[in-house]
Amino acid sequence: MCRWIAYSGEPIFLEELIAEPKNSLLAQSLHASESKAETNGDGFGFGWYAHRKEPGHYRDILPAWNDENLRSLSRQIRSPMFFSHVRASTGTATNRSNCHPFVQGRWMFMHNGQVGSYPLVRRRLESLIPDNLYCERIGTTDSEALFLAACGKGLNEDPFGAICATIDDILDIMEQAAISEPLRFTAAFADGDDIYAFRYSSDDLAPSLYHCQEKDCLLIVSEPLDEGKHDWQAVPKGHAIIGNGREGGPLIKEMRLRQRAPISQSVNQK
Amino acid sequence: MCRWIAYSGEPIFLEELIAEPKNSLLAQSLHASESKAETNGDGFGFGWYAHRKEPGHYRDILPAWNDENLRSLSRQIRSPMFFSHVRASTGTATNRSNCHPFVQGRWMFMHNGQVGSYPLVRRRLESLIPDNLYCERIGTTDSEALFLAACGKGLNEDPFGAICATIDDILDIMEQAAISEPLRFTAAFADGDDIYAFRYSSDDLAPSLYHCQEKDCLLIVSEPLDEGKHDWQAVPKGHAIIGNGREGGPLIKEMRLRQRAPISQSVNQK
Amino acid sequence: MCRWIAYSGEPIFLEELIAEPKNSLLAQSLHASESKAETNGDGFGFGWYAHRKEPGHYRDILPAWNDENLRSLSRQIRSPMFFSHVRASTGTATNRSNCHPFVQGRWMFMHNGQVGSYPLVRRRLESLIPDNLYCERIGTTDSEALFLAACGKGLNEDPFGAICATIDDILDIMEQAAISEPLRFTAAFADGDDIYAFRYSSDDLAPSLYHCQEKDCLLIVSEPLDEGKHDWQAVPKGHAIIGNGREGGPLIKEMRLRQRAPISQSVNQK
Amino acid sequence: MCRWIAYSGEPIFLEELIAEPKNSLLAQSLHASESKAETNGDGFGFGWYAHRKEPGHYRDILPAWNDENLRSLSRQIRSPMFFSHVRASTGTATNRSNCHPFVQGRWMFMHNGQVGSYPLVRRRLESLIPDNLYCERIGTTDSEALFLAACGKGLNEDPFGAICATIDDILDIMEQAAISEPLRFTAAFADGDDIYAFRYSSDDLAPSLYHCQEKDCLLIVSEPLDEGKHDWQAVPKGHAIIGNGREGGPLIKEMRLRQRAPISQSVNQK
Repeated sequence: MCRWIAYSGEPIFLEELIAEPKNSLLAQSLHASESKAETNGDGFGFGWYAHRKEPGHYRDILPAWNDENLRSLSRQIRSPMFFSHVRASTGTATNRSNCHPFVQGRWMFMHNGQVGSYPLVRRRLESLIPDNLYCERIGTTDSEALFLAACGKGLNEDPFGAICATIDDILDIMEQAAISEPLRFTAAFADGDDIYAFRYSSDDLAPSLYHCQEKDCLLIVSEPLDEGKHDWQAVPKGHAIIGNGREGGPLIKEMRLRQRAPISQSVNQK
Repeated sequence: MCRWIAYSGEPIFLEELIAEPKNSLLAQSLHASESKAETNGDGFGFGWYAHRKEPGHYRDILPAWNDENLRSLSRQIRSPMFFSHVRASTGTATNRSNCHPFVQGRWMFMHNGQVGSYPLVRRRLESLIPDNLYCERIGTTDSEALFLAACGKGLNEDPFGAICATIDDILDIMEQAAISEPLRFTAAFADGDDIYAFRYSSDDLAPSLYHCQEKDCLLIVSEPLDEGKHDWQAVPKGHAIIGNGREGGPLIKEMRLRQRAPISQSVNQK
Repeated sequence: MCRWIAYSGEPIFLEELIAEPKNSLLAQSLHASESKAETNGDGFGFGWYAHRKEPGHYRDILPAWNDENLRSLSRQIRSPMFFSHVRASTGTATNRSNCHPFVQGRWMFMHNGQVGSYPLVRRRLESLIPDNLYCERIGTTDSEALFLAACGKGLNEDPFGAICATIDDILDIMEQAAISEPLRFTAAFADGDDIYAFRYSSDDLAPSLYHCQEKDCLLIVSEPLDEGKHDWQAVPKGHAIIGNGREGGPLIKEMRLRQRAPISQSVNQK
Repeated sequence: MCRWIAYSGEPIFLEELIAEPKNSLLAQSLHASESKAETNGDGFGFGWYAHRKEPGHYRDILPAWNDENLRSLSRQIRSPMFFSHVRASTGTATNRSNCHPFVQGRWMFMHNGQVGSYPLVRRRLESLIPDNLYCERIGTTDSEALFLAACGKGLNEDPFGAICATIDDILDIMEQAAISEPLRFTAAFADGDDIYAFRYSSDDLAPSLYHCQEKDCLLIVSEPLDEGKHDWQAVPKGHAIIGNGREGGPLIKEMRLRQRAPISQSVNQK
């Protein structure tokens, strides 16, 4: 499992969330509080919107706490909308192509979770990627496959619908393959205008997700970055949160996806 | 395009081929003589047989000339059979998962060449990988896909036949997709007992390949490592060379694969 | 030897110099035209001024041509003053701490050249670094030592004077140690307001340096980025060029440092 | 702080200690039990004696748990004497040049500990390195400086004496600089014949060190690799242990270095 942050609002330096808070993303890379994996040291990345339609993109394989470039870049780059992610691999290799966020056109995507028994269904999961996007698959993660599948499912036209439909397709695949492991999906998409963040699991143990709306910004995070300073609200399981921090509060929307009965052997996974 | 060396015979230190000759593989990483790409700086690797059935494996993404680990390891490791490869990427990412050699069970594989218009036929090429090996695909290169496809085609039972059949399948795919770019394949496989090296192209511009049989060893290389010191023989186009250096000279065998008429726009490619 | 570019003027995207021109810095990393070392693949870096007094900083050890982060960052980051450098190591290790530019407070520095027989005079060269800056030495290059020595020589108060005095000190050290190799120094400093670039060698073979002043910008480069598009002027040997592109043309100033007779065995080195 | 293992005895595969035990060095890189730093993810390395007088050497900057090369190399390389180390940086950069073990001629060295307030005494510590070895300093750690200083103090002639004398010199330097932080030194040297391991601190909180002598081997480790399987003995504080596993039990020898009164603010550090 991984940890991530998403921001939209008045431009701020990336380090204000990545490096400065007590429980910053850098701190979480070494010691996450609410994660199954305490150490999120298998690479990291950030993506941000600036002067172009498509986001910029920086990913590397060192632990985030160890990357001096990350410190300098996040201290200099300001953005009104950015993502950052620290990775705890669930099995795929530690290389840049497998680090989040992933970028496709003006969209970016990051994910905390996993498709249960991914090695068994990888081929079928990849079959959801349309031909014209298949050459854009440069890594081997379930996350990237899911992202490209969603792109092919109408992400530009109806983001919320495309993502729910993609998850539904994956649930079909997992059922056909008789996978008992859950599909866990706490993830965020952005297109430069809005953030779409999701908290879902096919069992009842969806990874943790919080948001905080203030007068000019929206923060969505795997776990609170500080205690007391912000009013963190847990995103309800099975819901998405959509917003940009500038135009009123975010929309919270139910995902209406099937859910399986909790699988008893699952460990608690935030 | 890339450069590689393969050795079988009395155990020698890897550095005797990787670092010491005038035109060593290290030297070729910076300035190859007979390669389309003069600089082969997009990663490197070696694999070797020692105390186990399966080979050991070291790959990294720095240029070979810059890797102090490569110098120290190749100075200490002795082996009766090893491969080493320096990479000039033909488009896929520079990460360890895409560096050669690839290892599967007791087999290892490395490749200089490419499947023409790979992005257009990647999906069909991957469909040649059997289900039980698909989870072993950890990179995204055409080379790894081709290797896993060959593993599924009976590499253990009839190596020469399995490889020719795999190439034949890929030629089918390329024809169906109306790809005019050639399939170039100068590659080596080993299983710990023998080396199987191939020099083939679907046009008449197969990348260069040389061998040298001495009393107790067989060397197969992309380009001669020195002038005068060894008696380098060009491997004929469309032929494979099979041997281990210890049991008489190598077998040279025609591949009997279809060949297309030379494509005029192709540049000379060694 | 290395290649570098320096820019001051209206804000532009870094990629406009790093990636886009025919002979961009990326192109020079693989094939430099006027450099002793054709391949500049031993790391790279850039530094830029944006929203803070001190510059941002990105350095990595892959060849520049291979770094996808460099492409994305330079496509998104705009700056009115930036440096970028591709490295061909003259002996010290390839790690981030040895990549240029170096940053100290609001200053940044990059260098193409070398202190002849550096291993023999390294200790004495380091003795020029003042105590309070010695803990800022995080790499082992002659370049970083020279930079920190200049910082201690009054770089803030009189940049041109501090640099000439530092070089003079190093020439003393080299003479005392009877070093016959030259001191070559084609380098640039910036403090956010102005660029100070130098072309000097203790023999008559100073590495190449060009500049181009246009109406709103000043470019200083190891070699022209294109033919015809800009009016590139060679900086005379033994001279510095000082400017920022906005306030009239740059100042060209003689360095007035001693020079030794050309050493016959030196090869031409641009 | 760091974790390490040292082995001498019948040749074994490195993975038998690095990867296989329950509390293997790989496991300790992610979760050390007895270390101040739970995560030892700032690089790693191993060194081993094989066919040459000088040891081989592999170091890299990823966390050990993430390095597929480490797994394959340690599975294939057998050695009668080897070191391996996982690093938790105490301030210096994460690059290969700063990873342990360090190699000098036939000696190798690794260290868990630190010279208190190193940035304040670095220059004086480096002054202990003799001129002829100064060019061998390729990193910036206190550990490497200490190693090179010991090499210059007669490591070849009287290893135990040279190391104690070097520590004594450093204690002098720290006293002169009025450093209140302790000097902690739990370290191992080897020359291919014997291992010399030390457990010392200038306060009473020497980092943990254990050994285990069996019929044909000697293991010395930061913390036990398993419970019950071996008879681990704590090395007494202020003592060295010298041996090679083949010629009877190891020698345990008092270091007889001055010790300062425990500094109250020091936290327990194993």
